[in-house]
Amino acid sequence: MMKKGTILTGDRPTGSLHLGHYIGSLANRVKLQDLYHQYVMIADTQALTDNFRTPQKVRENVTEVALDYLAVGIDPNKTVIFIQSLIPQLAELTMYYLNLVTWNRLKHNPTVKLEIKQKNFGENIPAGFMTYPISQAADITAFKANLVPVGEDQKPMIEQTNEIVRAFNRLYNKEVLIECQAEIPKFARLPGIDGGAKMGKSLNNAIFLGDEEDILRKKVKQMYTDPNHLRVEDPGQVVGNPVFIYLDAFGKDTDKIEQLKDHYARGGLGDSIVKNYLFEVLNEFLTPIRERRKEYSKDKAQVMKMLLKGSTHAFEKAEETLQEVKKAMFLDYQ
Amino acid sequence: MMKKGTILTGDRPTGSLHLGHYIGSLANRVKLQDLYHQYVMIADTQALTDNFRTPQKVRENVTEVALDYLAVGIDPNKTVIFIQSLIPQLAELTMYYLNLVTWNRLKHNPTVKLEIKQKNFGENIPAGFMTYPISQAADITAFKANLVPVGEDQKPMIEQTNEIVRAFNRLYNKEVLIECQAEIPKFARLPGIDGGAKMGKSLNNAIFLGDEEDILRKKVKQMYTDPNHLRVEDPGQVVGNPVFIYLDAFGKDTDKIEQLKDHYARGGLGDSIVKNYLFEVLNEFLTPIRERRKEYSKDKAQVMKMLLKGSTHAFEKAEETLQEVKKAMFLDYQ
Repeated sequence: MMKKGTILTGDRPTGSLHLGHYIGSLANRVKLQDLYHQYVMIADTQALTDNFRTPQKVRENVTEVALDYLAVGIDPNKTVIFIQSLIPQLAELTMYYLNLVTWNRLKHNPTVKLEIKQKNFGENIPAGFMTYPISQAADITAFKANLVPVGEDQKPMIEQTNEIVRAFNRLYNKEVLIECQAEIPKFARLPGIDGGAKMGKSLNNAIFLGDEEDILRKKVKQMYTDPNHLRVEDPGQVVGNPVFIYLDAFGKDTDKIEQLKDHYARGGLGDSIVKNYLFEVLNEFLTPIRERRKEYSKDKAQVMKMLLKGSTHAFEKAEETLQEVKKAMFLDYQ
Repeated sequence: MMKKGTILTGDRPTGSLHLGHYIGSLANRVKLQDLYHQYVMIADTQALTDNFRTPQKVRENVTEVALDYLAVGIDPNKTVIFIQSLIPQLAELTMYYLNLVTWNRLKHNPTVKLEIKQKNFGENIPAGFMTYPISQAADITAFKANLVPVGEDQKPMIEQTNEIVRAFNRLYNKEVLIECQAEIPKFARLPGIDGGAKMGKSLNNAIFLGDEEDILRKKVKQMYTDPNHLRVEDPGQVVGNPVFIYLDAFGKDTDKIEQLKDHYARGGLGDSIVKNYLFEVLNEFLTPIRERRKEYSKDKAQVMKMLLKGSTHAFEKAEETLQEVKKAMFLDYQ
């Protein structure tokens, strides 16, 4: 089948993946792998830009993330799953692109500015962190991706990439690199079980794809709902209530969910009943994922073999682009 | 023979090499290649950090610089001569080292600060230029060089490298990288023929190693001497007079040179006589270099073959180091 284009996407291996990832990106990848050339990168090099003190954690999570991919149905026969650090061409492209971006431009990248605040670097911002948008441009352009699924907050990254693409092609007088488009997922972010706006690996508010049944039950039980819904008979708030947001995202029986919402809104429906149902829904959704995950994790050597194979494939594609880039820059020594 | 250590040195391919290079570094390399493992890098990637608009110039000068090396007697059988961009490991190491240096530290590198002023970047400092000290640390450490011949003004670069070495070894708990020492050449800088403090490729004040006899004669004739030495009978200034500095650097007949100095100092010796003698001295020095250069440049394909062979050798050594680095960082996927 004729593919519609090329996607580059991926995750930083800083923890296992959770329901937020499923909703925000994984589900989409499973769908798009039939329609696009899809490259999914486990971004260990990028993860190290702010986790360089704990490389072992990054290393371990490379396997965990790969298990999550396989468990949700990202198929290595359809999607190229690869490890960033195994593709030296990405570092080489970064070196050339660093010349095309000014120091000032980097300082004013809105995404990076926000992240620097969040990460409390203070005066000690690693240079690697400041320059990671350039490294991202290398990742995207190496595979000639024209579609990059990102959150709204990551749009400046795509702009930065396209600035580099235009600067390169203009300067070296060749249409070597191609511009890409951001694809913003339709479903908004999944809130955390604590009611926080975003479920996050390290926010202690996530339901992980590999969570066991008892852990799932415990997490659902402790979920934040409507803090004003004190007595069963009180009317409860449905909009913005994480329990109902999760039901909308993962439940199949929409009639039943609507009934529950109505009942909750007019009062008389206890949180525990909604939560029990949510547990059932999530457990039904997660059980096959959890089981596949367990099955794959029995043979981690096989998982690594898959990653190495994907990385070889990615290496070849990136090498093609790098050769074109070097040729345009008169660096094709022979 | 047991080697005394490993040297990493090199040049940016932004122009042919001149007498200043010979005195400041090339002569030393010819001597040291018997005593040390010597890696000489043609730094095309680094040259691009401030010449990215003119890559063809950089490309052409890679060959010119290699011809200069061969002409002065740097022997590819004793010295590994290689092209920086052919060693992807250098880019990879740079990526990892970028995490170990803060953004602020880069801003305050004295060498870079000075160069930024000289280069008139204004607000548009390329990020690649700001980060090149980190790239230099990659160059040095990739070959486990313990001796790096640099000018006095480049000492902060060596400090930056050693900071990275210590940070890496401490953080990853392994003595993978080794510290290096700056070797400051004993002979001070050669002034330009215009009397400027430094002979420079792009300062229009250089005598190049490949300059033809007639060009050499013209350049010596127009040399700056003592501006107060207006009439032959006037006493002339010897100290700081480029003509005598060159004679000291390249002349062999020290008795004759002392006589000329005395005569010039007390008056009665015209500039043109000293210059005629200097021309003879320089021409005697440059003639064999010029001839070897011509000989080698008849077969540039052969020169490139030599560079590719050296680059393969450098690649292997850098790969060894990179594997150790990656292993220490738990990035040795297999």
